[in-house]
Amino acid sequence: MQYDLVIIGSGNVGFHLTKAFFDAGKPPIQVFNRSRRGLARIQKRFEIATTTSLRKVRRDADIYILAVKDDAIDYCAKLLSEVVDKDSIVVHTSGNVTIQTFQATFTNFGVFYPLQSFRIDRKLCYDEIPILISASNPMTDQRLKGLGKLISNRVQSIADEQRAKLHIPAVMVNNFVNFIFSRAYDYCQLHSLDFSLLFPLIKETVERLEDRQSPFEYQTGPAERGDQKTIEVHLHTLLENPALHDLYSFMTREIQNYKNENSA
Amino acid sequence: MQYDLVIIGSGNVGFHLTKAFFDAGKPPIQVFNRSRRGLARIQKRFEIATTTSLRKVRRDADIYILAVKDDAIDYCAKLLSEVVDKDSIVVHTSGNVTIQTFQATFTNFGVFYPLQSFRIDRKLCYDEIPILISASNPMTDQRLKGLGKLISNRVQSIADEQRAKLHIPAVMVNNFVNFIFSRAYDYCQLHSLDFSLLFPLIKETVERLEDRQSPFEYQTGPAERGDQKTIEVHLHTLLENPALHDLYSFMTREIQNYKNENSA
Repeated sequence: MQYDLVIIGSGNVGFHLTKAFFDAGKPPIQVFNRSRRGLARIQKRFEIATTTSLRKVRRDADIYILAVKDDAIDYCAKLLSEVVDKDSIVVHTSGNVTIQTFQATFTNFGVFYPLQSFRIDRKLCYDEIPILISASNPMTDQRLKGLGKLISNRVQSIADEQRAKLHIPAVMVNNFVNFIFSRAYDYCQLHSLDFSLLFPLIKETVERLEDRQSPFEYQTGPAERGDQKTIEVHLHTLLENPALHDLYSFMTREIQNYKNENSA
Repeated sequence: MQYDLVIIGSGNVGFHLTKAFFDAGKPPIQVFNRSRRGLARIQKRFEIATTTSLRKVRRDADIYILAVKDDAIDYCAKLLSEVVDKDSIVVHTSGNVTIQTFQATFTNFGVFYPLQSFRIDRKLCYDEIPILISASNPMTDQRLKGLGKLISNRVQSIADEQRAKLHIPAVMVNNFVNFIFSRAYDYCQLHSLDFSLLFPLIKETVERLEDRQSPFEYQTGPAERGDQKTIEVHLHTLLENPALHDLYSFMTREIQNYKNENSA
């Protein structure tokens, strides 16, 4: 299938989607961004037509992907509806925003949600990234899946409520976990410890997940084994570091509660 | 250099050390374990001499590695001191226990701390695992480094206090992170969401660390960007799940505090 695709937004998500379709040999026919600066890297790397005016967005594309901030989706959709063909497909890329946001403005619409954390400065393997599709009708669903399969091996439908629910564990495994890494890094800095000594341990922690059992089956450490002596030594060491002390004691309590609840 | 090595303990650490030295073509000359059951897999896989009696431990080895529980180190060291040559090198493998634990019983002693989480059922790349050495004297330090280099590319000295300190971030990046994975997994199970959809996101979260900047530079998500609307939606969704609600609100508050402190 051939799609004429326009991407609205060249931030982290818009940039990577542009690059993914470009790498797949199906570059978008146009990329919009509010600011010229955000478009410079697109023009430079991909030689794709760009515009900074929503009014100048191509009206004849098949699919428009709104890769903009959650708050800007409604606004962009309304402006876009005054420009493009009524039977165009319009999607956003947000885990949070309901598909219904397009109800008043379009007929063929949906969500094209790539479940990944995008940063312009990071290379990604696009074909592994789950693309989760919601669509207003079966034709749109089929078209969006075709679009997703151009860049990913993992395209599937997901109901609006399920996508919103999935955002919670996504926040946990990315944002919360990264925050624990941040605190661990700061602690290492403070005590002249080489944070990278922990990389093999971190790698192993993650690779175990692929065994597809509950991660708690691999839970170890002082909290899990009820080693109060070590816990108290650690908490004592952390008295000089109140924020980390709080994190350590909270997580320890949570692990112990979890163990008690699940063994009761 | 040639070492005659005895490993005391065939639990997770003892098993993997045995395997690592075996794979490196330098199998231990004997492995001790209290129970026959724990020795069966050693005998079967490696054809190494074993014993269940500390009294029958070979007295003529060069180095003895105590890969036993923290609480058992003292006891094993005392028994061992009645059996083996006085100039033998004796080490434990614990992140927690001070090197001084051997002061009264041996002359040449130390710590041989492999910074990894070991499970018998998991394969590991031994050569990446940091081996952190503490030693009672320079000769022992040199010998232990030589021993470490047989199995790892990452052998270095570490002071007793530094090793104890390093145990705290190790607990954080392994135990705390794994616990967050556990909670995320349970949430997915509860809502019929495929946990493995999150694997590419988890992988990316970890691979970013190798960029060697502070992990907080990659912090994203509702807490970091102060997106109260999304946070409230998530917390509302989690009202039916009090434990996860607590974790979510605690981590969100911590991330926001961290951001405020570090931008002030």
